[in-house]
Amino acid sequence: MNEETICAICTAPGMGAIAVIRISGPEAFSISDKIFKAASAQKNISAAESHTVIYGSIHQNGKIIDDVVATIFRNPHSFTGEDTVEFSCHGSVYIQQKIIQILLENGCRMAEPGEYSRRAFTHGKMDLSQAEAVADLIASTSAANHQLALQQMRGGFSRELDKLRNDLLHFVTMIELELDFSEEEVEFANRKDLNNLADKLEKHLHKLMESFRLGNAIKNGIPVAIVGETNAGKSTLLNKLLNEDRAIVSNIHGTTRDVIEDTVNINGLTFRFIDTAGLRQTQDEIEKLGIERTYQKIEQAHIVLWIIDSTMVTEHIEWMAGKIIPRTQGKNLVIIFNKSDKISKEEQQVLDQLFRSYSKSRIHISAKKGENLDLLRAKLLEIGGFPELEHQDIVVTNLRHFEALSLAHQSILRVKQGLQDNRSSEFLSQDIRECLHHLGQITGLITSDEVLQNIFKNFCIGK
Amino acid sequence: MNEETICAICTAPGMGAIAVIRISGPEAFSISDKIFKAASAQKNISAAESHTVIYGSIHQNGKIIDDVVATIFRNPHSFTGEDTVEFSCHGSVYIQQKIIQILLENGCRMAEPGEYSRRAFTHGKMDLSQAEAVADLIASTSAANHQLALQQMRGGFSRELDKLRNDLLHFVTMIELELDFSEEEVEFANRKDLNNLADKLEKHLHKLMESFRLGNAIKNGIPVAIVGETNAGKSTLLNKLLNEDRAIVSNIHGTTRDVIEDTVNINGLTFRFIDTAGLRQTQDEIEKLGIERTYQKIEQAHIVLWIIDSTMVTEHIEWMAGKIIPRTQGKNLVIIFNKSDKISKEEQQVLDQLFRSYSKSRIHISAKKGENLDLLRAKLLEIGGFPELEHQDIVVTNLRHFEALSLAHQSILRVKQGLQDNRSSEFLSQDIRECLHHLGQITGLITSDEVLQNIFKNFCIGK
Repeated sequence: MNEETICAICTAPGMGAIAVIRISGPEAFSISDKIFKAASAQKNISAAESHTVIYGSIHQNGKIIDDVVATIFRNPHSFTGEDTVEFSCHGSVYIQQKIIQILLENGCRMAEPGEYSRRAFTHGKMDLSQAEAVADLIASTSAANHQLALQQMRGGFSRELDKLRNDLLHFVTMIELELDFSEEEVEFANRKDLNNLADKLEKHLHKLMESFRLGNAIKNGIPVAIVGETNAGKSTLLNKLLNEDRAIVSNIHGTTRDVIEDTVNINGLTFRFIDTAGLRQTQDEIEKLGIERTYQKIEQAHIVLWIIDSTMVTEHIEWMAGKIIPRTQGKNLVIIFNKSDKISKEEQQVLDQLFRSYSKSRIHISAKKGENLDLLRAKLLEIGGFPELEHQDIVVTNLRHFEALSLAHQSILRVKQGLQDNRSSEFLSQDIRECLHHLGQITGLITSDEVLQNIFKNFCIGK
Repeated sequence: MNEETICAICTAPGMGAIAVIRISGPEAFSISDKIFKAASAQKNISAAESHTVIYGSIHQNGKIIDDVVATIFRNPHSFTGEDTVEFSCHGSVYIQQKIIQILLENGCRMAEPGEYSRRAFTHGKMDLSQAEAVADLIASTSAANHQLALQQMRGGFSRELDKLRNDLLHFVTMIELELDFSEEEVEFANRKDLNNLADKLEKHLHKLMESFRLGNAIKNGIPVAIVGETNAGKSTLLNKLLNEDRAIVSNIHGTTRDVIEDTVNINGLTFRFIDTAGLRQTQDEIEKLGIERTYQKIEQAHIVLWIIDSTMVTEHIEWMAGKIIPRTQGKNLVIIFNKSDKISKEEQQVLDQLFRSYSKSRIHISAKKGENLDLLRAKLLEIGGFPELEHQDIVVTNLRHFEALSLAHQSILRVKQGLQDNRSSEFLSQDIRECLHHLGQITGLITSDEVLQNIFKNFCIGK
């Protein structure tokens, strides 16, 4: 493979104590030796063993630019599978840029986003879904999405898909053998066995597709809609949850304010809070639009928190229940009685009684005083906590994978229908091949340059 | 030395393709082995050779946290001089924090700011001025201050100080020998030689102190005051210079907007532009104060740019010259005729003639059209370019060093005075000892815990 040698800063942008610059490709060693002088004169990078480290300095026109540590990885024992050098330099922005500039002058090319991972894929170091998991892993901000990405990167999903493909491959070979003997009406592939396999596959693919709802929620945060009247204390509650979280994450997260603003991390699980317009009867057309949007947000949510001002429970509440309850069928509705410090225990029990038919999840809190917020958090975890995650099940988190799985699922449904209709081997074979194709696209067994480009362009530079 | 084992993230904060976590101290290997499993089972960190790399994974409670590369440095062959492990992990913020947390659980302590450098100093890997240079190197944002910091880190300044100290030490030993024989009035130290040395030292210290003005300018930017009438185009020019620079540096610099706003990097040299209030005759007391401040800023500047609107040269200019010229004696005054595209070549020559007595640096530009800005840049470089920097001269950039040098200089002046006054050996010895003390403080030969604390607390964590 006649590839260029690429370089990039691999550590986070900005100033740090140290920074790492990675050079990968056929000329990685020779280019590095042109600019690097080992502290002990007899050493150089080209002659160094793999997985060793040399202390020295980077030079340009006889001038020292920085003292660095060079780590040598010989192909195929590197991330990309190519010869790789990593320079660990002082983390000044100036030095980082300078070393990149010197590398470019000496024959490197700047790596494109995701190019290291793409090369790792090209050289068979990982399949496509694993490479995608690397990007997810780097972007992971919670225990749950970290765990999913890590599992996918380490090949859990790929092994599952391989198993499915192998079963199918066996059958398609048999069926295609029948085509060669089409005059003779032999059946190499037992139709009943094939039907059983198609059944099994269909169920399995369906389960994987189902897992995407969960996977997506974990990756992007479990959507939680907060509904209620404006003065019920929605924003006080949201701020309380956000601030406590932010106090913990503020100096950890490098993410933008917009993202922090409405997601809260509870015990490693991310919840994405969606604030909504207050619900009330109105003739105002614009306000009606706002309320329409609130209904849509309820649709998108996995959990709905209905906040009620404990001190202001009037008949109006019944009207609200009429609006909210029908829209939360199949969702998890939690009724939150706010300002509960303002009423007596007895009054709380009356409220409880009044609302028991709407939902069995009911919590009395004081958002302002922070009372019982731990109960709310526990409830959110109970609902959003997806116990199956413990069991190392495969969870699909990637939209591209979900779409490929859906197409594979459609093919397998056609296979089933074809078997039922006693269709020809040719017809069956075509649908099985299609299913194989879609499954193969996930791991990159079958792929196009365009698809690869699309996948890797969203990676960060340096990965 | 009964030191704790410390850990910190050493790369820039935030998300990157990879991040590096450094563990240093007596337990670095044993703690690392508790949480790290090598991919090939027979390997572990405690048994690994120095300057080698092991691929494996970080574990917590039987769960994999990340695939990492561990680099092993055995004492004394590490930055700190202690046993050191560097984990290169995936650069998710979550993973970085998680690994730190696991290290803390397993017996590490979080490193304080600058603690790695302080340990390097304690273990004799570098002296104090070198350790300080590491911090400067990391903060360097231009070629010039990078070069100064690098030279200091590599010991240039320390060697120079050692030479001075050694010369002095020889003499003080001789003089103190005289004290033992004080009854006998012998002179082991030749007074004429001592006077010559004191002369030489005094000149040398003076030169080093002088270099601080330059060093400080390079470190913080060479101060350039822009004066002129409000509509002469001061801000257009400043914006032009800033924007062109910002376009180049914006995605490189991690610095704050405030800092970028008024410094411009030209060919690796930083200029700090100081915008001033427009100068005009006024009775308004508040405006008078503003003009007073303008005069003060001219005082602080190394270069003064006087911007003149080429289309509006009236008698008022003479009044301005009377204010500006006396205040720029010994400074570099550059007269800039702006809006020169609005007048003819002949008119430009007339202006040139009119202003030739004020300064020989005169440039005709159009800030708006960006015309002749390259001439202005070349002029700034010519004035601010400090040719001596090419000659690897020592330049003092650190206020602490400057203050110690000043005190050493005062001591040596007292020695000279003492020699002239024929003072006793005792008296001379005391002043020489004081001079040695101040010089020793720079490299950390003489130091206190308080001084060290003050120096290292300004480092970033991870260095």
